[in-house]
Amino acid sequence: MVLPELFHDPMSPFCRKVRVVLDELGVSCSLIREDASPQRDEVRTLIPAGEVPVLINDSGSALADSQAIVEYLQDIHREPDLLGKNPAERAETRRLVAWFDGTMYQDVTRMIIEEKIHKWRQRRGKPDSAVLAAARGRLRLHLDDMERLLATRFWLAGERFSLADVAAASQISCIDYVGDMPWSSSQATREWYARIKSRPSFRPILHDRLAGMPPDDHYADPDF
Amino acid sequence: MVLPELFHDPMSPFCRKVRVVLDELGVSCSLIREDASPQRDEVRTLIPAGEVPVLINDSGSALADSQAIVEYLQDIHREPDLLGKNPAERAETRRLVAWFDGTMYQDVTRMIIEEKIHKWRQRRGKPDSAVLAAARGRLRLHLDDMERLLATRFWLAGERFSLADVAAASQISCIDYVGDMPWSSSQATREWYARIKSRPSFRPILHDRLAGMPPDDHYADPDF
Repeated sequence: MVLPELFHDPMSPFCRKVRVVLDELGVSCSLIREDASPQRDEVRTLIPAGEVPVLINDSGSALADSQAIVEYLQDIHREPDLLGKNPAERAETRRLVAWFDGTMYQDVTRMIIEEKIHKWRQRRGKPDSAVLAAARGRLRLHLDDMERLLATRFWLAGERFSLADVAAASQISCIDYVGDMPWSSSQATREWYARIKSRPSFRPILHDRLAGMPPDDHYADPDF
Repeated sequence: MVLPELFHDPMSPFCRKVRVVLDELGVSCSLIREDASPQRDEVRTLIPAGEVPVLINDSGSALADSQAIVEYLQDIHREPDLLGKNPAERAETRRLVAWFDGTMYQDVTRMIIEEKIHKWRQRRGKPDSAVLAAARGRLRLHLDDMERLLATRFWLAGERFSLADVAAASQISCIDYVGDMPWSSSQATREWYARIKSRPSFRPILHDRLAGMPPDDHYADPDF
């Protein structure tokens, strides 16, 4: 049997989301590490748009876009259910996923990764402190919204762990890697993230390292 | 029986997408026209994030995010099937939806709507021609990708009309309203869009008008 293959960048929140879902669903998969813009010819053929994550399924087809991939995986492997047990629950999960994948990424994670990681990888100079300050300001607004949700919910979409938690933690873990999470002012989110860090599906993510750019000491520690 | 209600902005591609899906699935719905940032108190209570589309379902719950809403509608009304008949087809449909809703919107539609419609609505001066030129340049790249797909497919995701067609046509119809579609250089896309314009689900979209800003003559004409 041929294992599916995932082309991924360890510092892409969308790749992290797919990796966690693969693990939560118990799907074995070969991980192939690529930069966000892969250069190898064999990869470019598989991934014309040049963007990871791309999943090569066991019949050899290439699937792209993190949400299309995780919906596909849930479509095939029905349990455990990460979307919700009825249409209204699934709508709430998908609303939150769109918030984290879309708005939070565009407002916050994209700038922080560009300024702190891509510039460093590509030797394009120092982070722009004005861009980082603006991203951190918008991050506080997003965390305020998360605090409000988590005041009444154990997990983001309700009482059960869901894809909303995976999507949020994928963004937040990238921001936390470079030390930009204001943990002291977000107590409910901090407790939620400690629960996330304790999940076996999240451990491989927390043990990834960029050569030459280690994270803060607290990064992989569930008691932070 | 209480009809569901959709709060929408006629010039939002995401609202257009939900309206077409409601019609394709045969769901009756009250349409309530709002600006993209609604100001009325009763709406603000329902829509804390201030963004449309928001669907109030028949039990009074508010659902947000266009993709969460259309997945919910398909979840409840199974036929006609707009996603695909197996997991691989659904993955391809969702990949394309993410492309149009995500990349094409961020690269093209967002700037064109901001410069030509929001600035005009809010009396914020003339469109920035450099921003528009950059958006039009990126639009050509997206149309090249669509031409390649439509060289071998009758609809974007394959042989059957799908949510990918709805998502693409929702972006393109907004761009076409303000006259920015380069139809002469995109023959396959033009023929595909003529098929879209002929669908009954798309007619109400094409008959929406902004007071004081009519579209070009060809806009609502299937033979353009």
